[in-house]
Amino acid sequence: MRDVQNEPDLRRIPLRKVGVTGLRYPIDVLDKANGMQTTTGTADLFVNLPRHFKGTHMSRFVEIFHAYRKDLSMKRFLAMLEEVRRRLDAERAFASVKFPFFIEKTAPVSGQPGLMCYDCGYEGEVFLRDPENGGGISRVFTVSVEVPVTTVCPCSKAISRHGAHNQRGRVRVRVRNTGFFWIEDIISFVESCASCGLYSVLKRKDEKFVTEHAYENPRFAEDLVREVYAGLKNAVSLSPPLCEKPFLWFSVEAENEESIHRHNAYAYAEYTSP
Amino acid sequence: MRDVQNEPDLRRIPLRKVGVTGLRYPIDVLDKANGMQTTTGTADLFVNLPRHFKGTHMSRFVEIFHAYRKDLSMKRFLAMLEEVRRRLDAERAFASVKFPFFIEKTAPVSGQPGLMCYDCGYEGEVFLRDPENGGGISRVFTVSVEVPVTTVCPCSKAISRHGAHNQRGRVRVRVRNTGFFWIEDIISFVESCASCGLYSVLKRKDEKFVTEHAYENPRFAEDLVREVYAGLKNAVSLSPPLCEKPFLWFSVEAENEESIHRHNAYAYAEYTSP
Amino acid sequence: MRDVQNEPDLRRIPLRKVGVTGLRYPIDVLDKANGMQTTTGTADLFVNLPRHFKGTHMSRFVEIFHAYRKDLSMKRFLAMLEEVRRRLDAERAFASVKFPFFIEKTAPVSGQPGLMCYDCGYEGEVFLRDPENGGGISRVFTVSVEVPVTTVCPCSKAISRHGAHNQRGRVRVRVRNTGFFWIEDIISFVESCASCGLYSVLKRKDEKFVTEHAYENPRFAEDLVREVYAGLKNAVSLSPPLCEKPFLWFSVEAENEESIHRHNAYAYAEYTSP
Amino acid sequence: MRDVQNEPDLRRIPLRKVGVTGLRYPIDVLDKANGMQTTTGTADLFVNLPRHFKGTHMSRFVEIFHAYRKDLSMKRFLAMLEEVRRRLDAERAFASVKFPFFIEKTAPVSGQPGLMCYDCGYEGEVFLRDPENGGGISRVFTVSVEVPVTTVCPCSKAISRHGAHNQRGRVRVRVRNTGFFWIEDIISFVESCASCGLYSVLKRKDEKFVTEHAYENPRFAEDLVREVYAGLKNAVSLSPPLCEKPFLWFSVEAENEESIHRHNAYAYAEYTSP
Repeated sequence: MRDVQNEPDLRRIPLRKVGVTGLRYPIDVLDKANGMQTTTGTADLFVNLPRHFKGTHMSRFVEIFHAYRKDLSMKRFLAMLEEVRRRLDAERAFASVKFPFFIEKTAPVSGQPGLMCYDCGYEGEVFLRDPENGGGISRVFTVSVEVPVTTVCPCSKAISRHGAHNQRGRVRVRVRNTGFFWIEDIISFVESCASCGLYSVLKRKDEKFVTEHAYENPRFAEDLVREVYAGLKNAVSLSPPLCEKPFLWFSVEAENEESIHRHNAYAYAEYTSP
Repeated sequence: MRDVQNEPDLRRIPLRKVGVTGLRYPIDVLDKANGMQTTTGTADLFVNLPRHFKGTHMSRFVEIFHAYRKDLSMKRFLAMLEEVRRRLDAERAFASVKFPFFIEKTAPVSGQPGLMCYDCGYEGEVFLRDPENGGGISRVFTVSVEVPVTTVCPCSKAISRHGAHNQRGRVRVRVRNTGFFWIEDIISFVESCASCGLYSVLKRKDEKFVTEHAYENPRFAEDLVREVYAGLKNAVSLSPPLCEKPFLWFSVEAENEESIHRHNAYAYAEYTSP
Repeated sequence: MRDVQNEPDLRRIPLRKVGVTGLRYPIDVLDKANGMQTTTGTADLFVNLPRHFKGTHMSRFVEIFHAYRKDLSMKRFLAMLEEVRRRLDAERAFASVKFPFFIEKTAPVSGQPGLMCYDCGYEGEVFLRDPENGGGISRVFTVSVEVPVTTVCPCSKAISRHGAHNQRGRVRVRVRNTGFFWIEDIISFVESCASCGLYSVLKRKDEKFVTEHAYENPRFAEDLVREVYAGLKNAVSLSPPLCEKPFLWFSVEAENEESIHRHNAYAYAEYTSP
Repeated sequence: MRDVQNEPDLRRIPLRKVGVTGLRYPIDVLDKANGMQTTTGTADLFVNLPRHFKGTHMSRFVEIFHAYRKDLSMKRFLAMLEEVRRRLDAERAFASVKFPFFIEKTAPVSGQPGLMCYDCGYEGEVFLRDPENGGGISRVFTVSVEVPVTTVCPCSKAISRHGAHNQRGRVRVRVRNTGFFWIEDIISFVESCASCGLYSVLKRKDEKFVTEHAYENPRFAEDLVREVYAGLKNAVSLSPPLCEKPFLWFSVEAENEESIHRHNAYAYAEYTSP
């Protein structure tokens, strides 16, 4: 049977990425409280395609992801990528997987338990280093978390006789590290930087608490980004530390679904270790 | 050339709807301030398919919608539907079109102008009445508007020392009428029922105003639905009236993007004239 | 502490639905091959609100759903709804939960395994019957499945020298039953009605098979709906049967993402047992 | 009244972007056939925020965009950005606006007219150059177009007795240029690289034409990207040329909604002028 993908291509145009997108799969990820957590992921998987090949073999991406789905810790995610790179005979392999991540969180006064959902993701890249620079394999791994929070507007509070507009906001953090850290720790640190964290279950005494706590801690989107930025930069010296080794790179983004506008307020900062 | 769609079908199963969905088109709709407004719509167009036909002729839906796009007032929308019904040789024709609708709105204190966007829609159905009941053609026309608003939580305000959680909410109203009314009037009535309406441009003195106004007018999702319901039921006696003739049917839905939760609070009511 | 929600309301407007929407939770559902399957759901939970209450207690919905999440079979889903109704002191309770559902499926020739994802959902309603009609509790339970398939256009095949346009289509089925049935059986029956089912992993010999099989089984959206309709109507007499008792009600919808248009082709039919 | 945003910030963290997102507005853009076209846009507007300011003044972004909406050609878009930069007293300003763009396209045989919708966008950045490098202002302007097309799979065609799987695909092109070009020309060039372009209205003789044309021109996602890449690289020498000056940078992305899979096939390439 003809293998059209393997035939030579004469246009001499290398492709940076070829692969599959939107692959939905159940996956198991690390969970601080329970060891592992089963959730549902959406994956994109790619390799580079040298100029002389006409096409890639899409089925192999799925076969490999299928085999690794039962344990997608950071280490295994990179091993999966390395296997994609080898099996597809490429210099580079890329992957991302997005998944909802669930954490049990108790209400601040009543202690009522509920599960909170956070949209998280892994992104990775594995590539052969230039042989002139000693060769070998490089690995990049980035974790992203989106943390929904409350933000009370400092300006609205300062200028108004009573009340202050507040709203749901989303903080998206992406971090790159070579050491171990828990997603749960990043999330609870981000929540501590907001006017208040969110909860699934709040009884009336809890609602009183979160309303007052938020009003006493007003934050612009700009403030929120700066608070999270300052903490991530000093992640190893926080008490308790967020991770074993300093983050190599991170970005912080806050988007407030302004309750007085139809559009959102936005702030973004990025850090690269020197 | 074979006309497969026109061939007989032996399964004897009538289809309630066949047609096209997701047709994106620029359309012109009525605008109270400017006569007409050009916006962009997404249309679904259907007819019923009797049991003896194998398929419908999809291209005719698009041809007819194409011809009517330059004036999609209520009257023309129903005329378009009637032409769909006749050209497709069906007993019933259905259509819906969703579009963003823009209204200039000035800030409450500074008077600064800005455009607000509201997601609106038309739905229609045209059908032959049973000849035993005198025959003729029936027409149903429903307008929907989605109005983003601010809501301050009455419970949070009542139990907290200071502040009150508030958030962006969405009120969706669907109304059925045989007389004329302006979408703009429905929208501004809905905004008057909320803790406060939203604005595109707010200077600091406006922000003070909307913060205080909202705090003084707390509303649950339940309150919002009841306020809008009460007004729509008495639409002709409001001052100014919302429409010439009473609404035959309407529904009101409020969804608050709770600033203390990740999930939303929801309320819904429906009215049918006796 | 004031209980604002419990205060009387003087507007005398009953609300058909009040509750929470967009609650994301891990849930466990029945799985034919493995007993149970852990997936991630998005739930909406409502009760009716009589005219004399100002508001509902939103936290109770989440508390109850939290307790039931570990086993959301049909029976337990209705028990959960019944508890919602009682705890919220309402006449009616409604719920829907949507979730991706995963089934292992092997390629048709090579036998390579892969997981396929299907968007499924439960909807339920529990209500007190009118005491004049003997009282008691009524329960309605509806399952929905969305099955992605291939459809080859019969018209395109009939009129063209070679080839035929084909595309991904989505078939959405909703069924209401009082007896037991497997979601897996509905899904594989729907796939058998299409030009071909979809797969996660296809090697070249599989790709040859599915291409030829689809070309030999062209289907309009209209055909697909009629084939599924005919089968669901005779669900108990199919071999093997799809369910123990006939469906009380069902709807079938097919939407083809036409490869020659930007818009979709659509067909819909509905059945109610006499 | 206090101006909290203007107060000093002691955390010494500069923010790369602050501003507004999701601003929906009617806009007017250039149209080759009709001079201008009114459509609906969604805009994001940002500036950088130096470390010593606490916040930005969000209302100014909207005021400026409001003033420019009636003519968003490339030149005016950059002038708008330059005004944002100056009014917000920043070194950098960024903006993007996404909009559906409509082009009349006649069916290939019958000549029937219909409107096709393409998702397009502008992105821009204006910044002060380093005074050490001579100062002045730099401007970057990127146009993006998404072109839906048909792709027939070359492998499926080569190995199957008859037929070949095909599907809707999306080609996304982003180009950066300092000279003038028409979005319409990019779109029709991309369509010419696919197995076939899409149409809103196709009569039977047109359907025969597009089916056969597509079958005779099979394309992998990889092929499509390479064809478009080769053309954009030689944009000034095509006949007719796509633009006056060569593109400084571009990217090409193809995503096929595989009719035999639930996931998509993807290819991507990027070019920077030497």
